[in-house]
Amino acid sequence: MGNNGPVVAIVGATGAVGTTMIDIIDARESVPWSEIRLIASPRSAGKVLRVRGQDITVQALAPEVFDGVDVALFDVPDEVSAQWAPIAAERGAVAVDNSGAFRMDPDVPLVVPEVNAANASERPKGIIANPNCTTLSMMAVMGALHREYTLEALVVASYQAASGAGQPGIDRLQAEIAAVAGKDVGVRSGDVAAALAEAGLPAESPFPAPLALNVVPWAGSVKDDGWSSEELKVRNESRKILGIPDLKVSATCVRVPVVTTHSLVVHATFASEVSVDAARKVLAEQPSVVLRDDAAAGEFPTPADVVGGDPTYVGRIRQALDFPNTLELFVCGDNLRKGAALNTYEIAETVAAGL
Amino acid sequence: MGNNGPVVAIVGATGAVGTTMIDIIDARESVPWSEIRLIASPRSAGKVLRVRGQDITVQALAPEVFDGVDVALFDVPDEVSAQWAPIAAERGAVAVDNSGAFRMDPDVPLVVPEVNAANASERPKGIIANPNCTTLSMMAVMGALHREYTLEALVVASYQAASGAGQPGIDRLQAEIAAVAGKDVGVRSGDVAAALAEAGLPAESPFPAPLALNVVPWAGSVKDDGWSSEELKVRNESRKILGIPDLKVSATCVRVPVVTTHSLVVHATFASEVSVDAARKVLAEQPSVVLRDDAAAGEFPTPADVVGGDPTYVGRIRQALDFPNTLELFVCGDNLRKGAALNTYEIAETVAAGL
Repeated sequence: MGNNGPVVAIVGATGAVGTTMIDIIDARESVPWSEIRLIASPRSAGKVLRVRGQDITVQALAPEVFDGVDVALFDVPDEVSAQWAPIAAERGAVAVDNSGAFRMDPDVPLVVPEVNAANASERPKGIIANPNCTTLSMMAVMGALHREYTLEALVVASYQAASGAGQPGIDRLQAEIAAVAGKDVGVRSGDVAAALAEAGLPAESPFPAPLALNVVPWAGSVKDDGWSSEELKVRNESRKILGIPDLKVSATCVRVPVVTTHSLVVHATFASEVSVDAARKVLAEQPSVVLRDDAAAGEFPTPADVVGGDPTYVGRIRQALDFPNTLELFVCGDNLRKGAALNTYEIAETVAAGL
Repeated sequence: MGNNGPVVAIVGATGAVGTTMIDIIDARESVPWSEIRLIASPRSAGKVLRVRGQDITVQALAPEVFDGVDVALFDVPDEVSAQWAPIAAERGAVAVDNSGAFRMDPDVPLVVPEVNAANASERPKGIIANPNCTTLSMMAVMGALHREYTLEALVVASYQAASGAGQPGIDRLQAEIAAVAGKDVGVRSGDVAAALAEAGLPAESPFPAPLALNVVPWAGSVKDDGWSSEELKVRNESRKILGIPDLKVSATCVRVPVVTTHSLVVHATFASEVSVDAARKVLAEQPSVVLRDDAAAGEFPTPADVVGGDPTYVGRIRQALDFPNTLELFVCGDNLRKGAALNTYEIAETVAAGL
């Protein structure tokens, strides 16, 4: 630890999530970091970014940059984390990793502080994993309800934002929206794709189909039996975070033309009956959750309303008419904040508090 | 019946669905109508539209326009249907109604021809109802699977297009897309709404929140216990069409920024085990269903691909990992065609064949 407080490093500081981490460090004074190191690929090294009033030069990733670091936050591709998080840990840092490289490693805790903060201190490899953004969008809500009613099953459909695919995803959606604006497309098969080609957009895209004026039932890579990696992450990570190894989960992940903030429709079954009023009371008491649930007054969360905020928003809470002990919910969370940068930083705060 | 064939009337001929009905009559030669009457509100009367090579003048709605009509297709608001479909029936027409006025009337059959065509001939009131577009998007698929495996439960999340709210919905979405194009919005709470206001769009909208760069978890009117009318229609109409009065159904309906074509994520539980291969085989044999299901090859349906077509498209078929006898599916159907005009016209074809 430095003289006046711990040292933090942000690896992947120039990406969509890294940039949001810097915003969060600027806005929160919870940890008096004595030094903030910004680390990125050699391509971005040398850039100067302003954090907490200081100009900081981005350094290229190398083993030495972790010397003296207490907490290293990683937002880089899986294979980069797989190589470099252990190096950071070896040099004495606690690595908090937002890739998929370590999430299912039994020796790496997968942490959402308001659900399982205690797990952050059991870290035999010196690595703590941050969950996938889609899973994270519902964990504060489901964790709070599980503590009271014991969760047994989740059926989930996602409405995932373009920024889940990083800055290239945001850029692509904005370019597609500009290409279809003012045109009468989305009315004949293939006319959206034709408008994108006509506007000169490259056929190569972060998404496997046009996203403007469309929804795309795919996110992630191909896994066995038709499942996407994203859908299996929702299942496996929910089980690990909530500590319910046999939780029943089925998820279908769909990309929608929203810049940032993932939404989920959740059909959640509990061991005992839960009334809508009881669920609302539990959720209203959860500091990281905001209840927006009055359909008659037109009150429910939407991504355009939630984006840029820290809490998870929940509404449309209904008791299923034909399924016992089951609630229907609509949940929104900013996938760059609680879904990525914010939760990673909250893990860092938890770690720093224990140093 | 006219000399050379039956007489058809289209009530609501100038709306989004009525216009699509005319396209369908032009494209299909299944029924040799001897006369086609176009009927609308007095505001639209006098317009001339071209159908099957003839110029036809739109007439104002009045009892006499139904004299001599064999089949009257209605796409008008609930209260207009409630008043006028019985008048058409009284004058000797079979009224095929696409409003919500008669769908749950026990003396009115609710028909999807490939699922329950026989019911169309039991019509004590001379009225046949066409289902809601969201329900219709999955009926061809679920009907085919139910015949083989006996459906027991459905958990549904919808991705509904703007044109579900008619031409005003289409116009609004296009105006909103134009208002946000080229702007860096969708990144801070409320910035989409601000961009719409700045572009001069009226605050009054067919949707209860901005739809561009957003998703809105609401469609229809407010019903008891937080449910929307759209969600209860999915439950009640699925039960009636499939003839399963105790079918378990939970639906959450969400509007997305797509012009036309509704998509549904469906979690369907059957009385017996269904493999993915068996389901694919059943669906591939269904004439009104197109299977697009090869995730490894990037093949799945999307609205931008399906729009303007007659069939229901299905893909992303997976066996649920933790729920017995359960499939996950992604279904897309053009809500103006199979979801409204096409199914209504297919009912008319069924009726005409029995005249």
